[in-house]
Amino acid sequence: MAAWLQEAPAADPGRLHAEGRTARAALEDARDQVAALFAVRPRQVVLTSGGTEAINTAVWGAARAADGPVLCSPVEHSAVRDASRRAGPVVAIDVDGLGRIHPAAVDEALERCRTEHGRDPALVHCQWANHEVGTAQPVHAVLERCRSVGALAHVDAVVGAGHEPLDAGSLGADLVSVSAHKLGGPPGMGALILRRGLRLDPMLIGGEQERARRAGLENVLGAVGFGAAAAALTGPGVLEGEAAEARRRTRQLTAAALEVEGVHQFGDPVDRAPHIVCLGVEGVEAEPVLLGLDQAGIAVHSGSSCSSETLEPSPVLEAMGVDAERSLRLSVGWSTTDEDVAAFAAVFGGVVERLRALRS
Amino acid sequence: MAAWLQEAPAADPGRLHAEGRTARAALEDARDQVAALFAVRPRQVVLTSGGTEAINTAVWGAARAADGPVLCSPVEHSAVRDASRRAGPVVAIDVDGLGRIHPAAVDEALERCRTEHGRDPALVHCQWANHEVGTAQPVHAVLERCRSVGALAHVDAVVGAGHEPLDAGSLGADLVSVSAHKLGGPPGMGALILRRGLRLDPMLIGGEQERARRAGLENVLGAVGFGAAAAALTGPGVLEGEAAEARRRTRQLTAAALEVEGVHQFGDPVDRAPHIVCLGVEGVEAEPVLLGLDQAGIAVHSGSSCSSETLEPSPVLEAMGVDAERSLRLSVGWSTTDEDVAAFAAVFGGVVERLRALRS
Repeated sequence: MAAWLQEAPAADPGRLHAEGRTARAALEDARDQVAALFAVRPRQVVLTSGGTEAINTAVWGAARAADGPVLCSPVEHSAVRDASRRAGPVVAIDVDGLGRIHPAAVDEALERCRTEHGRDPALVHCQWANHEVGTAQPVHAVLERCRSVGALAHVDAVVGAGHEPLDAGSLGADLVSVSAHKLGGPPGMGALILRRGLRLDPMLIGGEQERARRAGLENVLGAVGFGAAAAALTGPGVLEGEAAEARRRTRQLTAAALEVEGVHQFGDPVDRAPHIVCLGVEGVEAEPVLLGLDQAGIAVHSGSSCSSETLEPSPVLEAMGVDAERSLRLSVGWSTTDEDVAAFAAVFGGVVERLRALRS
Repeated sequence: MAAWLQEAPAADPGRLHAEGRTARAALEDARDQVAALFAVRPRQVVLTSGGTEAINTAVWGAARAADGPVLCSPVEHSAVRDASRRAGPVVAIDVDGLGRIHPAAVDEALERCRTEHGRDPALVHCQWANHEVGTAQPVHAVLERCRSVGALAHVDAVVGAGHEPLDAGSLGADLVSVSAHKLGGPPGMGALILRRGLRLDPMLIGGEQERARRAGLENVLGAVGFGAAAAALTGPGVLEGEAAEARRRTRQLTAAALEVEGVHQFGDPVDRAPHIVCLGVEGVEAEPVLLGLDQAGIAVHSGSSCSSETLEPSPVLEAMGVDAERSLRLSVGWSTTDEDVAAFAAVFGGVVERLRALRS
């Protein structure tokens, strides 16, 4: 991105002049790189301004392609839930105490959909892994059920993409949403990956960019960054290695955290996205813990990965039946080191103890 | 942008940790800079992924705020036209041979709206200046008529913003769309400027970013670039100076072009955006002229500023009654030099002559 910013013209890739052709080449190279990471053809990749736009576009297009209710679990990201509620009636897919969508719950929701609305759903959502507690979802089993009723299937893969292998080409989903910044790319970039041959109404209109699937001058700089991050994660064993490293580090973080009394892990401790761990801390709010860790140079998240839930109790924890309003989310990434993990282990207990002492 | 890319964390400005606070500060500084350029309060500025998203969001929100037809001239940008057609019935505002919306044509359209639809419009569009031929529009007079019928008014100021003074605070429009890359900022950034106190349904949902008016992790890098470009254009006399320079250069470009036989200027030669000139070249297509100029190192546009019109006759020229399918658009900007203008003047005639010789 730095090289592109310094050397390349900020040109419109839709233009025929040399500057435009340079921008076009960079954009299509980036698309190739993103497509390679997810094992799809470049033309299946619609570059967007982020995961939220990809999700909104997916729901928008699906709602116009087919009439009917949307099956959506309460642990989906707020972008998925809000866009679905706007698109039509929503039938909830229940989750268990780990935040997991069970295939049987999908069957039950399909049944309820028929009873309540007299028809099969037009669209079914199944996230790749939960954005708050990390629990991996049985995406393949859910997609099989979608196919059996002819519903469009959308997988919000924002959590997971670029952290573990995700072969969107063979997954069988109609729509897959991913985000660049979650995998080392720049904020403000994402992609909607479409099943081959699927054509949906675009949400942003007024230009033929992205094969008329997303109007607006392309963010080539962002695409270059997204492509570079994708390329760095592509190759035999690369993502498997990333996932193993992330899993090792999140296990260490969890072990250190659970040594502190009154600390619990939320979500599935084993079958989960490799890079996320969610903790509950008894007797203190998540926010002061976050600020205490921040003073020690450690950046963690309070609650979900979206700002819409900062002031309300977490709908994810609520759906899981967990008796906590907020949680602490630890995540590791390409820039995380073993020293970072050690630093957390060294200070976490002290931060929690000091806060508890203040309250007693 | 280069400094931000190298030094700053790619953090979420919605987070409370130090990295998040750094990103938040940069984002709000950028918003302040954009707001200052357009003489509005920072909270009136909703940062978007570009002019197209701003326009789509404006029309989306307006259509949900008020029921009724949309008044829209055929010379509006395709984003405005397409989004309006999607939002509801469109009543056309006629333009003259220069591509100008006359206040009397707005009156006539209002009348037609009442006759055909039995009501006043919910939304009226009036671009600041035409994106293809540069003709300045009588925005103030049109806005006055909007107020008189209580319609929401949207000004697509993508062409003009950052090239001449645009006081959005006192303009009287409900919605103003601008783009960063048109004024020296990065592609993939823009803003929707809202009238103080106006609250519309967001198009992108699922997060509370931008005061719940545009969901999705913010493109802080892009915002930093937008802010820097805006800041460079803010100050007493800066835009007036930019406009005078641009006007001088486009006059020189036009004079050089019109020396070639069979070359015409489209749009108002005087009352126009300072940085755009539109030419028709008899006997040759615009595209080979563009490619010929490109070989001489000169980048010009063929037709409109949006890729949606590359294959069709220009709706702008058609509405103007001009007997040409395509035009050649010359534009100057902050990086244009007098040498660039001289280079165009030196080669344009030769390029056209060679092409005509090939055809005869």
